[in-house]
Amino acid sequence: MPVKTITWEDDRLVILDQTLLPDEERYITLETAEDVHRAIRRLEVRGAPAIGVAAALGLYLAIRHSASPTYDSLLDELRQAKNHLASSRPTAVNLFWALERMIGVAVGLPGEKPDVVKAALLKEALGILEEDREVCRAIGRNGQELLEDGATVLTHCNAGGLATVDYGTALAVIYAAVEAGKNIHVYADETRPLLQGARLTAWELHRSGIPVTVICDGTAAAVMRLGMVDCVITGADRIAANGDAANKIGTYGLAILAKEHGLPFYVAAPLSTFDFGLKDGGEIPIEERDPDEVRRFHGVQTVPAEVGVFNPAFDVTPHTYITALVTEHGIIRPPYEENLRELANR
Amino acid sequence: MPVKTITWEDDRLVILDQTLLPDEERYITLETAEDVHRAIRRLEVRGAPAIGVAAALGLYLAIRHSASPTYDSLLDELRQAKNHLASSRPTAVNLFWALERMIGVAVGLPGEKPDVVKAALLKEALGILEEDREVCRAIGRNGQELLEDGATVLTHCNAGGLATVDYGTALAVIYAAVEAGKNIHVYADETRPLLQGARLTAWELHRSGIPVTVICDGTAAAVMRLGMVDCVITGADRIAANGDAANKIGTYGLAILAKEHGLPFYVAAPLSTFDFGLKDGGEIPIEERDPDEVRRFHGVQTVPAEVGVFNPAFDVTPHTYITALVTEHGIIRPPYEENLRELANR
Repeated sequence: MPVKTITWEDDRLVILDQTLLPDEERYITLETAEDVHRAIRRLEVRGAPAIGVAAALGLYLAIRHSASPTYDSLLDELRQAKNHLASSRPTAVNLFWALERMIGVAVGLPGEKPDVVKAALLKEALGILEEDREVCRAIGRNGQELLEDGATVLTHCNAGGLATVDYGTALAVIYAAVEAGKNIHVYADETRPLLQGARLTAWELHRSGIPVTVICDGTAAAVMRLGMVDCVITGADRIAANGDAANKIGTYGLAILAKEHGLPFYVAAPLSTFDFGLKDGGEIPIEERDPDEVRRFHGVQTVPAEVGVFNPAFDVTPHTYITALVTEHGIIRPPYEENLRELANR
Repeated sequence: MPVKTITWEDDRLVILDQTLLPDEERYITLETAEDVHRAIRRLEVRGAPAIGVAAALGLYLAIRHSASPTYDSLLDELRQAKNHLASSRPTAVNLFWALERMIGVAVGLPGEKPDVVKAALLKEALGILEEDREVCRAIGRNGQELLEDGATVLTHCNAGGLATVDYGTALAVIYAAVEAGKNIHVYADETRPLLQGARLTAWELHRSGIPVTVICDGTAAAVMRLGMVDCVITGADRIAANGDAANKIGTYGLAILAKEHGLPFYVAAPLSTFDFGLKDGGEIPIEERDPDEVRRFHGVQTVPAEVGVFNPAFDVTPHTYITALVTEHGIIRPPYEENLRELANR
């Protein structure tokens, strides 16, 4: 049973507030672009594809009730709202991709009446939402061939239904394998500091009846050494033209551990996560978040208040550690620069 | 200013309750062997050398007020208490080493009056405590030569003053380097699940005025990639005859990351942490702890209650990943089996 991470119901944007899981399954309605900006920044909605979908709908919300009398004034409003939404988080490229796509629709209707532009923007945003469903299912179908019956998969953070509209990227591969009749066991890194593996991946796999065991991030190497996992699959927040992939902090280390233990390391992501304008991962902006995410937990001090903390939210895994990229257009293997060029030209 | 992890004051065993740090610096008095057993099990006192010292004093506490009229009945009591204390935790060999050493003293006084044996046991336990001070300072002196002025060191868990009587093993190397006039910056893995790096290492380094930055365990690889650390130093809970070293879960992964980034990986430990009876690390018993250590944090559910958790407290780093072992008898380099044999025969 897929989760309902983002829905457009009765003309309203409804999201599952992920900061409250697994304790509470609470849905909240976002009425304005500012609501969407706040929800993205606070990680109430997170995961690269979900951020893209939310931002597209957020841009529509920004101008839905606009009184702009002309096309030009509406476009100005849209561009301002786009810039604001784009400032919510820096790393996941899906955010910028979705916003550009929305702006492109408006730009493609020069001189049109504001109401026509508004209707086209809603249609585009809902199209992005619907495409995400299709794209994630295609990622699952393509990727599930990588998993044999009985396989045990290690994953990091949450690249599941909660990171997309409803089905996931890395977890789509697992859902599709299970739907194909395979038994799959998942080890989920708890993923500090915000515990998306413990709180989100464990929650959504468990409610889907897929066996999942949570481990501390530092336990991954031991689990590999003990022969308890067959491969690693993660999602991504941005992938450069050479295949270097930014993902949740800890992913790069996991890729090294997989290599050292001779295990395949797969990254599952839609085309909208690729940034072909970037030569390599060194060009991907990495978000640094509030040290208090590490320093305090639900009000409890875990690091002395005066001590410094380095809290990058992402790291970059060089493509040399990635066995294959799983996309909606198929499985892509090295040489990535060459093989991704074909994808970029689609 | 060294910490006062374990002291014998006015005929009483006083420990710093480490479960309350960094929030609160509270000292508790342990009156009985059962108190000591509980304190070890609950990690109020932890760290291989500190556990050994506490257990030695605990064994004395077990018979201090004994009414055993004969040597034989006292020895029986001692052996029972020893078995009980030995059951508190399985991995750190210093526990068994200290208890064996205490029993050896009693066995070496056959037929003696109980009061004589009691006095000899107190003297031995206090000797173990004093030796720990000397040994840790020797580890520091020997190891500090490995660090250049300006070096940045990554460490995991807490192998500091809080893991020994007052000066540490891995952190002894850092303290000694600083005392030798070098500037050293430390990155401390927070060390899930119990956050000994965040809570303890950061606390004791900060109060000693040594710059320390806390990172999530999953951030270590990125920090290495960014060129922010020069080497890794950890402690150990048990080291086999071939140099394989058990230490806090996450250490093995860190050793792999160090190798991948061309960084030296050092393990600092006293001779009492070596178990020459074990051929290799595969023979070291690894403690598995309560899943709720991972599943809950200060009463907050972080993993859904029904989801399984794998929570080994330690992992084993094969000696091939260890650049050198730092002991009170000097720095030991490969081939370990050969070079450790000399140490075993001391």
